[in-house]
Amino acid sequence: MARHATGSKHTTHRTEATRVEHDCIGELQVPERAYWGIHTERAIRNFPVSGRADAEHPQLIQAYATVKKACASANEELGLLSGVKAGAIRQACMEIEGGRFLDQFPIDVMQGGAGTSLNMNMNEVIANRALELSGHHRGEYTYIHPNDDVNKSQSTNDTYPAACKIALIDMLGPLAQSAKKLSRSFHALADRHINDVTIGRTQLQDAVPMTFGQEFHAFASFLKSDVAAIEALVPRLAVLNLGATAIGTGICADLRFRESATRHLAQVTGLPITAAPDPVAAVTDMSVYVSVSAALKNLAVHLKKAADDLRLLNSGPHAGLNELTVPARQAGSSIMPGKVNPVIPECVDQCCFVIFGMDTTVNWAAGEGQLQLNAFDPVIIHSLLDGISLLTRAMGMFRRRCVDDITVNVTVGRRHAESSPSIAASLNADIGYEHAVDIAKEASESGRTVRDIAAERTDLPADRLDALLDPITLSRGLGQTCREQH
Amino acid sequence: MARHATGSKHTTHRTEATRVEHDCIGELQVPERAYWGIHTERAIRNFPVSGRADAEHPQLIQAYATVKKACASANEELGLLSGVKAGAIRQACMEIEGGRFLDQFPIDVMQGGAGTSLNMNMNEVIANRALELSGHHRGEYTYIHPNDDVNKSQSTNDTYPAACKIALIDMLGPLAQSAKKLSRSFHALADRHINDVTIGRTQLQDAVPMTFGQEFHAFASFLKSDVAAIEALVPRLAVLNLGATAIGTGICADLRFRESATRHLAQVTGLPITAAPDPVAAVTDMSVYVSVSAALKNLAVHLKKAADDLRLLNSGPHAGLNELTVPARQAGSSIMPGKVNPVIPECVDQCCFVIFGMDTTVNWAAGEGQLQLNAFDPVIIHSLLDGISLLTRAMGMFRRRCVDDITVNVTVGRRHAESSPSIAASLNADIGYEHAVDIAKEASESGRTVRDIAAERTDLPADRLDALLDPITLSRGLGQTCREQH
Amino acid sequence: MARHATGSKHTTHRTEATRVEHDCIGELQVPERAYWGIHTERAIRNFPVSGRADAEHPQLIQAYATVKKACASANEELGLLSGVKAGAIRQACMEIEGGRFLDQFPIDVMQGGAGTSLNMNMNEVIANRALELSGHHRGEYTYIHPNDDVNKSQSTNDTYPAACKIALIDMLGPLAQSAKKLSRSFHALADRHINDVTIGRTQLQDAVPMTFGQEFHAFASFLKSDVAAIEALVPRLAVLNLGATAIGTGICADLRFRESATRHLAQVTGLPITAAPDPVAAVTDMSVYVSVSAALKNLAVHLKKAADDLRLLNSGPHAGLNELTVPARQAGSSIMPGKVNPVIPECVDQCCFVIFGMDTTVNWAAGEGQLQLNAFDPVIIHSLLDGISLLTRAMGMFRRRCVDDITVNVTVGRRHAESSPSIAASLNADIGYEHAVDIAKEASESGRTVRDIAAERTDLPADRLDALLDPITLSRGLGQTCREQH
Amino acid sequence: MARHATGSKHTTHRTEATRVEHDCIGELQVPERAYWGIHTERAIRNFPVSGRADAEHPQLIQAYATVKKACASANEELGLLSGVKAGAIRQACMEIEGGRFLDQFPIDVMQGGAGTSLNMNMNEVIANRALELSGHHRGEYTYIHPNDDVNKSQSTNDTYPAACKIALIDMLGPLAQSAKKLSRSFHALADRHINDVTIGRTQLQDAVPMTFGQEFHAFASFLKSDVAAIEALVPRLAVLNLGATAIGTGICADLRFRESATRHLAQVTGLPITAAPDPVAAVTDMSVYVSVSAALKNLAVHLKKAADDLRLLNSGPHAGLNELTVPARQAGSSIMPGKVNPVIPECVDQCCFVIFGMDTTVNWAAGEGQLQLNAFDPVIIHSLLDGISLLTRAMGMFRRRCVDDITVNVTVGRRHAESSPSIAASLNADIGYEHAVDIAKEASESGRTVRDIAAERTDLPADRLDALLDPITLSRGLGQTCREQH
Repeated sequence: MARHATGSKHTTHRTEATRVEHDCIGELQVPERAYWGIHTERAIRNFPVSGRADAEHPQLIQAYATVKKACASANEELGLLSGVKAGAIRQACMEIEGGRFLDQFPIDVMQGGAGTSLNMNMNEVIANRALELSGHHRGEYTYIHPNDDVNKSQSTNDTYPAACKIALIDMLGPLAQSAKKLSRSFHALADRHINDVTIGRTQLQDAVPMTFGQEFHAFASFLKSDVAAIEALVPRLAVLNLGATAIGTGICADLRFRESATRHLAQVTGLPITAAPDPVAAVTDMSVYVSVSAALKNLAVHLKKAADDLRLLNSGPHAGLNELTVPARQAGSSIMPGKVNPVIPECVDQCCFVIFGMDTTVNWAAGEGQLQLNAFDPVIIHSLLDGISLLTRAMGMFRRRCVDDITVNVTVGRRHAESSPSIAASLNADIGYEHAVDIAKEASESGRTVRDIAAERTDLPADRLDALLDPITLSRGLGQTCREQH
Repeated sequence: MARHATGSKHTTHRTEATRVEHDCIGELQVPERAYWGIHTERAIRNFPVSGRADAEHPQLIQAYATVKKACASANEELGLLSGVKAGAIRQACMEIEGGRFLDQFPIDVMQGGAGTSLNMNMNEVIANRALELSGHHRGEYTYIHPNDDVNKSQSTNDTYPAACKIALIDMLGPLAQSAKKLSRSFHALADRHINDVTIGRTQLQDAVPMTFGQEFHAFASFLKSDVAAIEALVPRLAVLNLGATAIGTGICADLRFRESATRHLAQVTGLPITAAPDPVAAVTDMSVYVSVSAALKNLAVHLKKAADDLRLLNSGPHAGLNELTVPARQAGSSIMPGKVNPVIPECVDQCCFVIFGMDTTVNWAAGEGQLQLNAFDPVIIHSLLDGISLLTRAMGMFRRRCVDDITVNVTVGRRHAESSPSIAASLNADIGYEHAVDIAKEASESGRTVRDIAAERTDLPADRLDALLDPITLSRGLGQTCREQH
Repeated sequence: MARHATGSKHTTHRTEATRVEHDCIGELQVPERAYWGIHTERAIRNFPVSGRADAEHPQLIQAYATVKKACASANEELGLLSGVKAGAIRQACMEIEGGRFLDQFPIDVMQGGAGTSLNMNMNEVIANRALELSGHHRGEYTYIHPNDDVNKSQSTNDTYPAACKIALIDMLGPLAQSAKKLSRSFHALADRHINDVTIGRTQLQDAVPMTFGQEFHAFASFLKSDVAAIEALVPRLAVLNLGATAIGTGICADLRFRESATRHLAQVTGLPITAAPDPVAAVTDMSVYVSVSAALKNLAVHLKKAADDLRLLNSGPHAGLNELTVPARQAGSSIMPGKVNPVIPECVDQCCFVIFGMDTTVNWAAGEGQLQLNAFDPVIIHSLLDGISLLTRAMGMFRRRCVDDITVNVTVGRRHAESSPSIAASLNADIGYEHAVDIAKEASESGRTVRDIAAERTDLPADRLDALLDPITLSRGLGQTCREQH
Repeated sequence: MARHATGSKHTTHRTEATRVEHDCIGELQVPERAYWGIHTERAIRNFPVSGRADAEHPQLIQAYATVKKACASANEELGLLSGVKAGAIRQACMEIEGGRFLDQFPIDVMQGGAGTSLNMNMNEVIANRALELSGHHRGEYTYIHPNDDVNKSQSTNDTYPAACKIALIDMLGPLAQSAKKLSRSFHALADRHINDVTIGRTQLQDAVPMTFGQEFHAFASFLKSDVAAIEALVPRLAVLNLGATAIGTGICADLRFRESATRHLAQVTGLPITAAPDPVAAVTDMSVYVSVSAALKNLAVHLKKAADDLRLLNSGPHAGLNELTVPARQAGSSIMPGKVNPVIPECVDQCCFVIFGMDTTVNWAAGEGQLQLNAFDPVIIHSLLDGISLLTRAMGMFRRRCVDDITVNVTVGRRHAESSPSIAASLNADIGYEHAVDIAKEASESGRTVRDIAAERTDLPADRLDALLDPITLSRGLGQTCREQH
């Protein structure tokens, strides 16, 4: 029996010109102007929930086009697709990669169906654009077919995660850049205050002296470790499952396709793409998404820590710690004149809370796979891409509108450093912990300095006391490390 | 000393006409066309993180205008604001309530500052519109001032939560409506199958007979309890804190303002609005948000349960439970011909995962208050409003695109009901649990029916057996309740 | 046909005397000394995961005995159980209620099986003890049978949740008591400092004056609302599903049993116990557990807020807020002499983090029901009972070892109250917000007081200034409420 | 001035003999029999919340002793501690490492104070035992002092995390072992069924054929990746911060101590221990705990997936998938005769829910650090150690009581494989997707096989059809991989 003559009929008698397409469910009118087809048209109507379209994640759309392009090359190489068809498909893909046709991906990001809607949307847009490029009309699927040609040797279950993972890699780059820049800003701030002493606090209680440099440098160190963690995700995200098709057995795909498609995709992306060792397991394994979510969460923990500490150190101005001043960005109150609040760190904190929620959503979706598929990757991908984007912008805001313009209250820091009774710890080696306790206690109760009391109550000479109790010396012990490692 | 002559200077020499406004930080150019002022202008630039504007929550904007309107009336009543000013302010508020000026609220929903930016945005838009209505120019704050007039007797810390809570009430209404409609759909489905037996399963193991009617009715019952829970939130959300100003002590507000503003707001909204008993505690108490989040979470648990059960019952068609068929909404696979998936319940599940994440975000934000304020209500409100909206639409989709068109496979249900060895439970009273065990075991191992084996191995007469083992009778015990309570 | 002669054979030839019992799986030796039987014996071996036994929740064991007792009475009343049997069963139940036989409930709290193991454990212990009381030997189930007699008209799916809910009610009482006592302690502290002014802070920035009394009173108010929320759970927890048996259809139960058992249970517990309106829905509805979890979470949010605020206010002693001193409970450092940390509030915080985790666990378990049962209530109940117990003890510790002995640093509070530039807000009405901004700004920059600058830069007379800027007056606006409502 | 003569006085006149010790807070009686001292005694009384003692984590106690031993060696090497003292301290440590004195660590696991209580408990027990070994009495701290000698060059903030991380490493070993064994069990099961076909399902809908071998092998692959993830944590956990003391500046510690202690600890543990690059950042960085939690969570996601799939495949026996039978471990119902439930996978699921809750708790505690310390590592460590232990045992139970005894219903699998309409996918290449749709649709609606309809409606010869539609061939595509990689 001959192949279906055509997958669509054209009509023009309506207000908006439409063409009729059909699928296993029946027929439907698709706007003539649309590059998408019946599968997309149905999905548009099916999921009116979040009001956000796949197009809001351009990296995902572009990555999917890249995957389709590599698959077309593999199919051509294996003799499964003619050079002409493969060429037209690739051309369409490259246009999408270049940013065209973004408005052709209107399906809700929370779509059911495990990504099939986006895959078919992609297949349809590519097919119709390739048809156009080949001198045919949209809908003339006899010449280039969304399923038989564009989707050849593929399924949603292998190409959709591939596109998602490449999109994640593409977005983790700017995230890491944003983290690096913020790290450098903290580092620069640390360098400016490498010799300015202040009090270290443990459990919010005055502890022992440190420098502002050490304090800010720690934030830079956190971010450096986050950058490393983000970069370590890339090779894991580059483990793809092309050729595995529906459930990992490779049904409908030439056995050589896996190697060929993987190689072509590595080539066009420049990424270290490999094929998963167990293709059946790979279809349902959500590990790498859980790991991306955990890395974002850990980054958020670090950002929250920095934002919270800045808010604490900025507290006052009169009845707070007042050790630094974050830049004034807007009036802080509709009623209290002159009050200025640390609105940027507060915004950072809120972004972190959203990330913690994202991690919960990802955990749920990752934990609900059944048998040969986890149908919930759309919400995982949407949540992760949104989360990456949010943190990327939050760090840019944090840096430009806060960290770069922090003023350190050097005098306050020094006064605090000198006032702490816990500085008596530096006498432990000379007079023992228990005796040092008595001195610290008296200092605390009388308000006198540890040095004064130690001078009275020990036989340590004045110069020894000065040496032992000098805050900058005390903070210097392991403190140089900060300088060295940046 | 005289009042400041004016809060703004006009300039027209730039490409886009601007006016200069000032605040405690300095001067800034504001677009002449904007109704907002300097506070808004700064905030627009400060928080480029989520890309979503306050205007995306129109209920919040409208509710805030309502609060301002009531406050203007209270101020007028107490002689704190002239009738002319109060009238102009109210007129501006009513226009905003009517949906105008939505584009004048462009600040990011994740703004730092505990809502001050939205409050000042509101004060500025109202002031400038009221100025216009009074024949003045925007920016001529000598005549009507955003802080001194529009915000009189108020602070962000009392009016922002008031607006948020009213917006929540306004959005919980449609949520409850959506839940009621879905409940009715499940009820109608139950009624159509009130006498169609199927097998009940516990722990996924065949248990004892029930009707499809009972099964679907349970989903309706869940939703009815959710509606009640949602409605029970309203009086708690209606406890407001007007007149408490900055920290609950009422500084800058006439003592009579609390009563007057509360009364006016109750009047214009028709809501049972009351003033919080402890105004200082009320400023920082996030309880009601935690409760709204919990109610949404519980609703999501119920929706997930229904969606999951439908996916299970729809499994197959050949190698699954196959007791019902959800309507085919789109082709299910790019590769497997004719496969159709339960994409609507899958979409519902994903919405639920987002709600579970929302609950985490709300928990974090609610748990991070410090001293006299929790600065994180913007992210709470944004998350809750988004969550309510998502569930409202998800239930509409669930109903229209799935539940209303479910086909029950009556024959399969009956066959399953009759095949369960656990039906031997109905013999317990006559022959004892241990003997029934033996019969059930043999039924299970041989594949024969419990009735056949019981006929052989007990001395129960045939009609007694028929009576004891009739599935519809078995399911009827407490089953009528379903009918009665709807 | 006759009933099985006996469910057990006795053996004495082993080191530990055992008896042999059988079930649908086969035979097994049970220690002769054990009151439990074969079902328990199997379960003990099946779940070696948490190392914690059901007996660690004595309230659950006792509540289950109460449920069994009421069911025996209902069965007797309906003529389904002889008076002799019912009497022996009730006697055994009362001994368990009295605290005996706790060591007979050794199954892991994380048991699979939806509570069947604990139900059978209960049935077996009651049966064997009732046998003893009736002059028979353990294992002679011909006389009193765990399933046919003790469990008559019941299933796990109706009695287990009943016992769980009563146990929750029993434990919520002491929780509410503990919250009330802590509330009273905060109230007493507030009363002692009703006239001591301090600075209120919003977003950690100096705001306007308040009293310590108002500050502490807010904590009491939080707890009062928690007590109300806890008490509101009781009627919801008292909605039970007795007589619903396996899946809610009431199979194996006389139709009158539901009413009778519910009535007897209400009588013996004194609780407002009712029967669920939709018995099928009730079997799988986890709503009330989700609500209990939410109430605990909200209580934890409040406790965390109080603990966090106390840690902030206690910060210093020299370089912190230092507005109060929590009692010294232990040396704070192994190295820093004399350092004392707020260890009690820190412990409270940690308990709250555990509660937040508990809420996640409950959400997961509640969200994973399938068809006619949610098999995961054991982990829900265990988590909730553990959580209630933890918070009950945490509040006792918080009160006795911290709140009751807090010392307020009255002088520091007053100095802070007077130093805040935001106090200029009280001039708004007289001079306008914008002019007040200038004064506040100068105060902040110069370190001079608002009063001094206002005296220079406004024409307000000295007595007006004194009246406007007096901290105690400022904090008094709505402050009296605190006094009144306790 | 002379050192304090002694830190304790002995008394014997009470019922229980006690000695009096003192600290910066005052004096307290300590039981004479106790090896602990005043710091421990206070802590015992301070935290009566969870009822669980540090001793319940023996690995933590032992690891702490190991840390103390290495520090003693470092102190000796640097001439800071006499050989005699160091020897006695080391001897005491080795006894604790060997399992002695576990009952001497009774402080609540949820202790406030950031671990100071456990550190002092350790210092006191070691000091008192070392005193005994040296011929002195407990409490005679003049000879060997808990702070000055045992804790020399150390603080809680460096040694406590060191002990915690080593304890985590020590417990991750058995966890990985348990995962490996479970993986091998799944692998063995897979091997036994490498040629038994069944149906693969996506979105719970019949998809295309696979073998049981492939299905079970995927579970093994998941676990293998978890083992790798667990092992990758070890080098990160081995980054310690010895010598950093209170806040990372190394106050009170000889600068050479960091290198020496790190080297000694590496030597005695055989672990690749290194010193953190930024000692100040390291004090507050919770990253590695967040990562451990994420690894446990991911393992739980995998275990839940396996348990859930087994529960689905085991559903029935008559009205479910019935493709395998998990071993019967206990009677499943108190009322339904012969019913057997998959209680072991259910227990596994519940353990996973607890792990998801643990991850929330860890996130909270990790996210709440302030300034130079995160005071909440006790609850983090307790939660992680508990979680590891739970999963270790859960996997042992899963393997021994479930996986090893699974029976595959080979006939059912084959019948399911052959019945799926989606098998028409294998015709795509020959007849095109759209034509295959028609065949699949007819097969689905008529109940006839795809082969029969294809024979009628295509011109494909019978042997081509047989080849294309053979389930074992279809599952073989990429299926061999399973064999190869184990």
